Amino acid sequence: MPRYQQIARQIKQAIGDGELAAGSRLPSSRTMAQELGVARATVENAYGELVAQGWLERRGQAGTFVSPSATATASRADLASSRPQGAPMPFQMGLPALDAFPRALWARLMGRRLRLQTRYDLVMPEATGESTLRQAIADYLRFSRSIDCQPEQIFIAAGFQAAMRLAVRTLAKPGDGIWLEDPGYRYVRPVFADAGMVLHPVPVDDEGMQIGYGLDNYPQARFALLTPAHQSPLGVALSLARRHQLLDWASARQSWVIEDDYDSEFRYHGKPLPPVKSLDGPERVIYAGTFSKSMFPALRTAWLVVPQQQIAAFTRQTRHLPCTVPVLIQQTIADFLREGHFWRHLKKMRHCYSERRVWLENALSKEGFEVVPQEGGIQLVMRVQGDDRERVAKARAAGLAVQALSDWRITPEGAGGIVMSFTNVVSEEQAQRYARRLRQAIT
Amino acid sequence: MPRYQQIARQIKQAIGDGELAAGSRLPSSRTMAQELGVARATVENAYGELVAQGWLERRGQAGTFVSPSATATASRADLASSRPQGAPMPFQMGLPALDAFPRALWARLMGRRLRLQTRYDLVMPEATGESTLRQAIADYLRFSRSIDCQPEQIFIAAGFQAAMRLAVRTLAKPGDGIWLEDPGYRYVRPVFADAGMVLHPVPVDDEGMQIGYGLDNYPQARFALLTPAHQSPLGVALSLARRHQLLDWASARQSWVIEDDYDSEFRYHGKPLPPVKSLDGPERVIYAGTFSKSMFPALRTAWLVVPQQQIAAFTRQTRHLPCTVPVLIQQTIADFLREGHFWRHLKKMRHCYSERRVWLENALSKEGFEVVPQEGGIQLVMRVQGDDRERVAKARAAGLAVQALSDWRITPEGAGGIVMSFTNVVSEEQAQRYARRLRQAIT
Repeated sequence: MPRYQQIARQIKQAIGDGELAAGSRLPSSRTMAQELGVARATVENAYGELVAQGWLERRGQAGTFVSPSATATASRADLASSRPQGAPMPFQMGLPALDAFPRALWARLMGRRLRLQTRYDLVMPEATGESTLRQAIADYLRFSRSIDCQPEQIFIAAGFQAAMRLAVRTLAKPGDGIWLEDPGYRYVRPVFADAGMVLHPVPVDDEGMQIGYGLDNYPQARFALLTPAHQSPLGVALSLARRHQLLDWASARQSWVIEDDYDSEFRYHGKPLPPVKSLDGPERVIYAGTFSKSMFPALRTAWLVVPQQQIAAFTRQTRHLPCTVPVLIQQTIADFLREGHFWRHLKKMRHCYSERRVWLENALSKEGFEVVPQEGGIQLVMRVQGDDRERVAKARAAGLAVQALSDWRITPEGAGGIVMSFTNVVSEEQAQRYARRLRQAIT
Repeated sequence: MPRYQQIARQIKQAIGDGELAAGSRLPSSRTMAQELGVARATVENAYGELVAQGWLERRGQAGTFVSPSATATASRADLASSRPQGAPMPFQMGLPALDAFPRALWARLMGRRLRLQTRYDLVMPEATGESTLRQAIADYLRFSRSIDCQPEQIFIAAGFQAAMRLAVRTLAKPGDGIWLEDPGYRYVRPVFADAGMVLHPVPVDDEGMQIGYGLDNYPQARFALLTPAHQSPLGVALSLARRHQLLDWASARQSWVIEDDYDSEFRYHGKPLPPVKSLDGPERVIYAGTFSKSMFPALRTAWLVVPQQQIAAFTRQTRHLPCTVPVLIQQTIADFLREGHFWRHLKKMRHCYSERRVWLENALSKEGFEVVPQEGGIQLVMRVQGDDRERVAKARAAGLAVQALSDWRITPEGAGGIVMSFTNVVSEEQAQRYARRLRQAIT
């Protein structure tokens, strides 16, 4: 096949695949010839053939364009549809209420930042994170979480895993032990395993992680990772006595407590306990937060608060694991915080989740399920007798995105359960419908 | 100090530090009291004191606000000034021409995306990258770089280091050897060292990496990383004979070639060689590209093209190292590519860099420096006799951001040199001024 026909075929294929949008301009034949390293006449032959066939059209001086009739893609509708249109699956975990985020306000704030950007906003983000966002987070933590910290103690990272990777690279060495909640969040475990650390499962009861079990079995561990506000997934808070026990251990052993405070904002009964970090006289706590649940996951933005004495060590490691959150995203989050929108949004979400949670809890109880009482968080756990994985497989086959508690466990023992989210349950009626479908699917 | 005074002091400090912007609304006393876990009256006392002192003002039903006179921060000017205002330092490397990027067009494209976003754009990015961007990159590679690949072969990552980390996690095991160009880009080396790989320096001459040296000394290596288009930093192209030698080795040994094609778009003399990937019949090449140089570094967006047979393995690893580039950024880059802006920008930049390069090369020659001839890329190298680090230290003391070639080397031998960028040299006159300052600083 002659070269010009090869080129023509590639262009047609790109149009057919939707890769070249209808109405878009092609490079000039001169430019295209340079790009491809062929003679200009070759490209002109290819363009000419496609114009004759109706794929392309010439618009005089303006150039050569993909014919609007050649494909129905690349319309405004297509632009908007380039992500799957489907709503979250019923009970799908890891998402905030997608209907409740103030998208128009967010677009306005980001639009303002876009207009204000100078050429100097095009350079790499600061390896530690943009100072404007570090300041805004320090301010938020001081007011909302009673954590008194300086902006320099805050390190921005592209999500919780990236934040953990930075902490591990700075503080851990191969062979170091780490206490992990069992059951607990599993997707972070490879970060520790990759670093050659030894994973010590510590059981959870109704006061949270059993610190005494850790002390008895792995006193020499160098780290403890936990979710003190609402244990993930069981939802219990770490008791005050255990918080002190934990800090005493870390202080005596010079070990590190990593506090994952990802959903602390969402508590529905009683007064929230302040974070462990706020009790951290001995400076042994690395605090981790994220905007994935309090704003939305597409941002991929999390942060660490590190002790004053560790600022230099963390800063050095950001050379190898720099913050990769784009500058514009960091700036807009900072504005969202500084201008009070974050507080207002959290307040609205607490009300929203409190309502959705009750809807789903009531609906599940009505269907005969046994919901474990929880004080906060953005998920529910139900007790089930027998093999929870088998039940969950049936539910998933019916399109319900619940998870088996056994899949959150490190050790195989322990009661079965079903874990689910209520954040995108938008009405009482929907909650009842979902609960009924779940019962029908698994019984 | 009573609790209400502590709260008042924290608020004042936040205003003084610019953390609470002038004119921004504080949470209601009820909300703040809940946040802080104190009585509402305590917060009202704090607010009252600050109103009396002029820090805050009440606006009836609208709420309590930071007084506009309390601080001069948070004006529009402050918003714009939250990044350092300084221009790049003379000769500073790693930056494209900051004055040449079409910021207004970019803001328009992103603004359109922002308006079109639905609630489903708020969820996590696809772990492998957004399909719309993977398609746009495949299309660009087909036309511009003669690489025929499917969108599924493309994996988006938050920068080149993140892309390398994904490749290493998928393909490498501890003890695997890797050929690295010597001199070469040093900030990627810790990615391989962290994975327990063995780093084999391979010298570079005027045909690029000395493949024969690698074959003689480390034939058993599992990887070779190189910059075939314009070796970084020496600027030479890998000769065609060596490309075949490299692919023959990889094919015979079932080793992997990682082709870093980061600045291939910028070539000023002769016809560009197609990438090694375009010759990759045996499917042993992992191709890496980035938008940091062809667009701007604040995007933190790079990509890999992997062989068809490796799609499943790479996809599995994205569970542990998911793409963290925010969805909106990926969508906007895709539009920039699909609508032809990327091609037009690259064309403009080739002209711009070709001009700036000649300005600086001529200016340096006029000052008696010996510039190494280069066919492309976005940096220049000058030969120097004696200790290049000492010269560079003097230049840096004079505010000139040149680098010592010795700092790019793995082995201590080899001629000295000075490495620098010309991308932000905006006029012939400025080039002459910089060259003169450099000569004065180091001689």
